[in-house]
Amino acid sequence: LLTGAQRDRIEVVLVSPRNPLNIGAVARAMANFGFTRLTVVDPFEAHWREARSAVGAESLLQDANVCATLAAAVAECTLVIGTGTRTHRKPEQPVLLLPELVSRVGVEMDRSGRAALVFGSEKSGLTRDDLAHCHLMVEIPTDDRQPSMNLGQAVAVCLYELCRVPSPDSGEVRSEAGRAAATSRVLDLLAELIQGAMLESGYSPKTMQAANRHDLLVVLRRLRWTSVDAKRALGLFRRVLFGLQNRGKS
Amino acid sequence: LLTGAQRDRIEVVLVSPRNPLNIGAVARAMANFGFTRLTVVDPFEAHWREARSAVGAESLLQDANVCATLAAAVAECTLVIGTGTRTHRKPEQPVLLLPELVSRVGVEMDRSGRAALVFGSEKSGLTRDDLAHCHLMVEIPTDDRQPSMNLGQAVAVCLYELCRVPSPDSGEVRSEAGRAAATSRVLDLLAELIQGAMLESGYSPKTMQAANRHDLLVVLRRLRWTSVDAKRALGLFRRVLFGLQNRGKS
Repeated sequence: LLTGAQRDRIEVVLVSPRNPLNIGAVARAMANFGFTRLTVVDPFEAHWREARSAVGAESLLQDANVCATLAAAVAECTLVIGTGTRTHRKPEQPVLLLPELVSRVGVEMDRSGRAALVFGSEKSGLTRDDLAHCHLMVEIPTDDRQPSMNLGQAVAVCLYELCRVPSPDSGEVRSEAGRAAATSRVLDLLAELIQGAMLESGYSPKTMQAANRHDLLVVLRRLRWTSVDAKRALGLFRRVLFGLQNRGKS
Repeated sequence: LLTGAQRDRIEVVLVSPRNPLNIGAVARAMANFGFTRLTVVDPFEAHWREARSAVGAESLLQDANVCATLAAAVAECTLVIGTGTRTHRKPEQPVLLLPELVSRVGVEMDRSGRAALVFGSEKSGLTRDDLAHCHLMVEIPTDDRQPSMNLGQAVAVCLYELCRVPSPDSGEVRSEAGRAAATSRVLDLLAELIQGAMLESGYSPKTMQAANRHDLLVVLRRLRWTSVDAKRALGLFRRVLFGLQNRGKS
């Protein structure tokens, strides 16, 4: 995982962006994933620093660099990465798929480098001339029928990928670990009560009762009860059984 | 990797979205990653179908479903996934990190299920009541200092993740693959019957009924019902309820 100090050595560079709302949205996504350095090259409109879409990233937008050319923007970088979506153009640079990016960027960080992720304008993406400043190109795996992404969304996806944690153990398992599972004893108790409710309510004919009991045990275990949930169910079925058994006595 | 036919069984559900431009941006991201089914629940503004931000996704937006409630929107789904960013609230549902999502969704697709990815409104995200309709929650790993994402960007990141790579499937998960999961509609029916049994059996005082209903929705989703098991439970609770209601009449 990239450290905060490493993220500070990764620049997001927007080439000739047209819509200030998109620039603000880029700033917001950067803040969401802990990136701080934004450079805007030759913006189309003047008043982009006030873009209201930069929710929670106002100061990031205020502190953004402005450059006249892409060459100036990436001058201090050791790895310049052009970005794009799936396309039929064959770039002259090596092409990585986005999921392959983080290891390449990690290498650059390990050797104290500085990386730039470069995004083209909303209209046309990066030109061949822009790409000439890039060491490689990274492709977001979009659908062939509608490859063209919104700028703010493309940046969000790329930065998410850089922060995406490889997770060996499942979070679902972790979050279940906090909750004690029901013991077999509790499940058997529950099965007994449910069986009682089945009998009292006339759920099934006598000939089916053994099969139903078997199914009940199997199903109860398939359901993966927590201890707390199983105890709630016990309480409910106690009441239900009591209610059923006292029919006609009220 | 999810096939096109599988992506058609994954719904994107927006709960009470406020800004039509965000709805359009969601549609665009869906088209970018090959998803087709959008449902809008109780939108804040009327004229969202014409949102100009739905570049290349105009027909997807035209064909979107509208529902009055989240329950109706996910009625046919077997796996309902709430989405959010890093937060200090502790949800009652199991929490997955976004990179762990694809294998869980893959399982659901393998057993012919239908999944919903549910996104809350721009203002507040999903409420506790919304989450009561979800089997689990997936968390986008955002920065603690600025966790709140733009809606269109959050959807783009989640859909990108689902299309990112072939999923490594775990053994446990494979064993579930053969069994059809219960739909949300069936779970809601079951909740209704159990509530009836609670009432008739005097399980809880009136003041607790709203809280009990909430807990019931949460617990039923935590239990991971197969379709067959849920139908058995429906049958049982129908009998039980009938039995309880006819107390004193025999």
